[in-house]
Amino acid sequence: MSHNTFGHLFRVTTWGESHGPAIGCVIDGCPPRLPLTEADLQPWLDRRKPGGSRFVTQRNESDTARILSGVFDDGDGPVTTGTPIAIEIQNEDTRSKDYGEIARAYRPGHADLTYQTKYGVRDHRGGGRSSARETAMRVAAGAVARKVLGEAISIRAGVVQLGPHRIAPEAVDFAAVYDNPLFAASVEVVPAWEAYLDGVRKAGSSIGAVVALEITGVPAGWGSPLYAKLDAEMAAALMSINAVKGIEIGAGFASAALSGEDNADEMRMGPDGQIVFGSNHAGGILGGISTGQPITANVAFKPTSSILTPRQTVNRDGLDVDLRTKGRHDPCVALRGVPVVEAMAACVLADAMLRHRAQNP
Amino acid sequence: MSHNTFGHLFRVTTWGESHGPAIGCVIDGCPPRLPLTEADLQPWLDRRKPGGSRFVTQRNESDTARILSGVFDDGDGPVTTGTPIAIEIQNEDTRSKDYGEIARAYRPGHADLTYQTKYGVRDHRGGGRSSARETAMRVAAGAVARKVLGEAISIRAGVVQLGPHRIAPEAVDFAAVYDNPLFAASVEVVPAWEAYLDGVRKAGSSIGAVVALEITGVPAGWGSPLYAKLDAEMAAALMSINAVKGIEIGAGFASAALSGEDNADEMRMGPDGQIVFGSNHAGGILGGISTGQPITANVAFKPTSSILTPRQTVNRDGLDVDLRTKGRHDPCVALRGVPVVEAMAACVLADAMLRHRAQNP
Amino acid sequence: MSHNTFGHLFRVTTWGESHGPAIGCVIDGCPPRLPLTEADLQPWLDRRKPGGSRFVTQRNESDTARILSGVFDDGDGPVTTGTPIAIEIQNEDTRSKDYGEIARAYRPGHADLTYQTKYGVRDHRGGGRSSARETAMRVAAGAVARKVLGEAISIRAGVVQLGPHRIAPEAVDFAAVYDNPLFAASVEVVPAWEAYLDGVRKAGSSIGAVVALEITGVPAGWGSPLYAKLDAEMAAALMSINAVKGIEIGAGFASAALSGEDNADEMRMGPDGQIVFGSNHAGGILGGISTGQPITANVAFKPTSSILTPRQTVNRDGLDVDLRTKGRHDPCVALRGVPVVEAMAACVLADAMLRHRAQNP
Amino acid sequence: MSHNTFGHLFRVTTWGESHGPAIGCVIDGCPPRLPLTEADLQPWLDRRKPGGSRFVTQRNESDTARILSGVFDDGDGPVTTGTPIAIEIQNEDTRSKDYGEIARAYRPGHADLTYQTKYGVRDHRGGGRSSARETAMRVAAGAVARKVLGEAISIRAGVVQLGPHRIAPEAVDFAAVYDNPLFAASVEVVPAWEAYLDGVRKAGSSIGAVVALEITGVPAGWGSPLYAKLDAEMAAALMSINAVKGIEIGAGFASAALSGEDNADEMRMGPDGQIVFGSNHAGGILGGISTGQPITANVAFKPTSSILTPRQTVNRDGLDVDLRTKGRHDPCVALRGVPVVEAMAACVLADAMLRHRAQNP
Repeated sequence: MSHNTFGHLFRVTTWGESHGPAIGCVIDGCPPRLPLTEADLQPWLDRRKPGGSRFVTQRNESDTARILSGVFDDGDGPVTTGTPIAIEIQNEDTRSKDYGEIARAYRPGHADLTYQTKYGVRDHRGGGRSSARETAMRVAAGAVARKVLGEAISIRAGVVQLGPHRIAPEAVDFAAVYDNPLFAASVEVVPAWEAYLDGVRKAGSSIGAVVALEITGVPAGWGSPLYAKLDAEMAAALMSINAVKGIEIGAGFASAALSGEDNADEMRMGPDGQIVFGSNHAGGILGGISTGQPITANVAFKPTSSILTPRQTVNRDGLDVDLRTKGRHDPCVALRGVPVVEAMAACVLADAMLRHRAQNP
Repeated sequence: MSHNTFGHLFRVTTWGESHGPAIGCVIDGCPPRLPLTEADLQPWLDRRKPGGSRFVTQRNESDTARILSGVFDDGDGPVTTGTPIAIEIQNEDTRSKDYGEIARAYRPGHADLTYQTKYGVRDHRGGGRSSARETAMRVAAGAVARKVLGEAISIRAGVVQLGPHRIAPEAVDFAAVYDNPLFAASVEVVPAWEAYLDGVRKAGSSIGAVVALEITGVPAGWGSPLYAKLDAEMAAALMSINAVKGIEIGAGFASAALSGEDNADEMRMGPDGQIVFGSNHAGGILGGISTGQPITANVAFKPTSSILTPRQTVNRDGLDVDLRTKGRHDPCVALRGVPVVEAMAACVLADAMLRHRAQNP
Repeated sequence: MSHNTFGHLFRVTTWGESHGPAIGCVIDGCPPRLPLTEADLQPWLDRRKPGGSRFVTQRNESDTARILSGVFDDGDGPVTTGTPIAIEIQNEDTRSKDYGEIARAYRPGHADLTYQTKYGVRDHRGGGRSSARETAMRVAAGAVARKVLGEAISIRAGVVQLGPHRIAPEAVDFAAVYDNPLFAASVEVVPAWEAYLDGVRKAGSSIGAVVALEITGVPAGWGSPLYAKLDAEMAAALMSINAVKGIEIGAGFASAALSGEDNADEMRMGPDGQIVFGSNHAGGILGGISTGQPITANVAFKPTSSILTPRQTVNRDGLDVDLRTKGRHDPCVALRGVPVVEAMAACVLADAMLRHRAQNP
Repeated sequence: MSHNTFGHLFRVTTWGESHGPAIGCVIDGCPPRLPLTEADLQPWLDRRKPGGSRFVTQRNESDTARILSGVFDDGDGPVTTGTPIAIEIQNEDTRSKDYGEIARAYRPGHADLTYQTKYGVRDHRGGGRSSARETAMRVAAGAVARKVLGEAISIRAGVVQLGPHRIAPEAVDFAAVYDNPLFAASVEVVPAWEAYLDGVRKAGSSIGAVVALEITGVPAGWGSPLYAKLDAEMAAALMSINAVKGIEIGAGFASAALSGEDNADEMRMGPDGQIVFGSNHAGGILGGISTGQPITANVAFKPTSSILTPRQTVNRDGLDVDLRTKGRHDPCVALRGVPVVEAMAACVLADAMLRHRAQNP
């Protein structure tokens, strides 16, 4: 990962600011002859799209992706050609508003201060480059990565904790996620969570959440010791998502309180010659390489930093100011983070797949 | 990070197996004219060295590092020359023992299964490449990274949770870490923790732990959006350490239960024109770039997988076997992980420093 | 360099096919606060643009570049922000013609065969990805690289050999290059060369050429031993240009016939404490690092492969066919290669500059 | 390529100075289960070794390579394990001599000036890092790369021009190369060349040369447009060899004087369904991708810079001095460059092979 590119062989480079003319990405290294059209991207983008419910920002964008290169129809339908796939989304709702105060003040929890300090200049409009809008391109790239991985690999995420409310592990059901506006991994919790989040929203406040990730179908052997470990790359990819503050693989922090006996994922030969594990504290990865078990992770999101309650901060003129975020915002940024978590996981896996077969044909 | 190399500009490549003739690393991209001798490496290596107490493996190694290149004394003492620094440690205690059963069986929690599946062959002696022995080279590289960073940057880690026992946040004292055999970040807990870990050890069991990391002195502006974010690179580097299963930056998973109001790190101008923060939930990083506040992280280690209690597993012949790890092992692998956590953080920061000044001279 | 990205810190990723909707590039790692608008790109693009004279392809493109990100006007005019600079050119003249025969046949000297063999599919329209049209993006990136380098560094190229006709070394004058339609590095030769190339053009034939490159103002010390040597990176960048078949640095192939005495670039201290060289056989680079002398190189271009004379070839159906390239083409592809050579050199140097100051602040 | 590492998937990192304790390399990404022992390396190293004839430096080194990691014998003989292969050669003949004058003076044609300027310090002993001694590690890595490529791919180089004397193209015979002390690609020229080079040697002078490279057996499809073109990567790898000043692929600089008709490598279907080419001006590469024809290149070496005739130069104290290189040296550095050219080509191809199958399984 290097500035705005991630991946080694399946490489994604993104560009664009929240209120610039467009955002886009270039996917390089994609295998050829995979059927691909805009219709393969749009469903995933629609899941992340603003404006879908009262729990996400009301920014009005169609988020229509256009493929500008790397796909060609030679008579059997459009397929990838092995050359760079450029994807672009026009920014539509870049209202010309007065950014006066925000242009100079550093919103707490945002990257305003750090971009300004690092670069001496920043595109302050809507968060510029650090806006969560950029994650649309991660989702588009993730859709292509899923094509590379094929249908045998399932990548699913969902909200398992909203503020203080946690879904019991045995109740987690990823099939429920895209059927409720909270991306909750259980239909049971939805009414209560809706009421809770409505309260947060109406108070002009926000709340954090935990998103769980489960990947099935990855064969044993993917990943690269020692520094390109599959869990290390997954951690980096997930931590690079806006607002993420923690990553667990498998048992994660709970491992700290486990004994060696309890933590051991014992093995037995199954009837069909496959290894059967008695548990999965490892989260499907040992020594940085996939075991063939489901890969599991948890991702902690902080609350949306933009809230209606004024917060103390400073501005570029070195003055104390109190800042209140006006306008649209998400009460829980983690919700729209769900498809982004899936997308980053897909990209990491597509890259690991290509690297694995390079060394181990 | 790519296979066995980490870093972009301050690049570390490690090699070697637990029971091969030697382990080593090559550090490329180090700035020139930094005073460096083996004496700069050894104190850090000694902290990680086996055999220091009854709580760490009794493998008998002097772990004496030798610098083979990249340093030259032109009259004013040995300094780095800007060319690759090769460091090597001879393996001394590679007892020729019968690995019969372990050679074929897959130890639960170890990389035996995954290396064998990925590569079709593995050096099974003492864990081969996946042994924690490799971390000695991370520590050596970290010592060089500290030279690059200079003394204004302090990088300290310590055990803050041992099994179920957690040090209260207000009691954490990193100055205590290297004065007790548990690397505990508080002298208060040592007697109780020693008794507890003695029990674990005598039972032939093991336990996990959480290591906290605190870095001070990093100026605002280091790190690179969007995929080489400082927190993303830190997460990858820490997750690549053997036995690590979770990473938190700043408030981490606790962020999920925070409101936007509580999570906001408010700012005010200090008397000397510096920004003063009211809190540090961000852990010193916003938008992937350092804020100037202390960088804080937590690292969860799983318990040592090698325990005396037999565990169910399978072997390369597809047979069920029960495996009991004989011989030396650490009851808590996180203890010796403390200097490794510091070293990885140092390498990440040295790399970020070089990258920052490349783009922002 | 990795697939469609070149550079380490000043990184350029290009995308797009000759007859797709657009071509573009993303420049990542550019230092912030450099004034930049489309007006900085266009003059360089215009030099490479088709349709400028009877000696270049008559494809009718305005080649108007648009900057889509990475530049922001915070009141003092548009400047780079340190985030990715996306540049795009719409393809205008993508005539919907019958590619029937070319779609299936492999044009000798073109990448038709190799793309088809490698990927199993190719965008055959106008050469697709392998078209020289892509070099417009190299030129755009080179214009940004020149901004990074500043005005003290001069990068100039020009045609010094057209077919069998060579300009005498002492007559080479880079100031003449953009004042004649042949990009010749001497006004003297223009009338004769025009007559010669008119003959080639009217015969439906083509001819090769040699482009010389001269860079002044690079300080001593840029470049990175041993595999990122400045001459190695320059060689790769220049060899990656369409139709290039040879690279010389300094005396190049003539070095083979020189004695050690004659090849030595002797040094003496100049009156102002600067080192004065007696010659420059090294071409400004020793041990992969710049000496402070002018950096000189020669680049050999093969003749345009598209000619009117039918050539024997085969097609995807495994049949022998005779192929004659219809339509527009350049009689000497090297002419429009001149600004491309300059641009690639600029990108290599901008990257070397950033890398140098990362390690040697 | 990045400082001291080359390759993307088959990655070689070298370290060590001419007169340090040892030199070494780390090869990462090598496929597993390839039989490998020191005996596979030594024959190639012996070809490059000093002391073999009166035409190469008399430095007395056994150049015995030792493999320290990445190879394991699990009962069927030593094979690669997929983990880093560390190779090391002890430096034996590092005579403790007085480097007084050379320590401060900048030898013309050497990297003394540039290393000193770049780094502010250099290991001046025997050229330090910039010594051709480092090429031993390229040769060792090349031997491993040949294992990756397998025996169907033949990589051969030889001297085709010594000073002004050129072997006629039709007389080039790579089978002759290792049977004569001049590495000449023809036995015919050896007597005359020996006499010529003896004259050069006795005069304390040196001379340049051209080394030709021919690779057969590479299937069509290897290489990566647009910036990792096979010819671009080959050019960089070859240009990174000490003393190289020019690279040609296929017809090279002669292409400049060819017409499109003459340059076209026409194709016809062969009797067995293979494509038969009428010529190979392309040198086996089109659009950066192998065509299946032999890959051909020429590499120009400058004369050895160390000569007995005093040359004018300056020293670190800013004084003019006249410098005469005492002691051992090669009258033609290109001779020992022959196995190095082969080795670099092997490494480039092994890397291309792995990358190709990653994207195109």
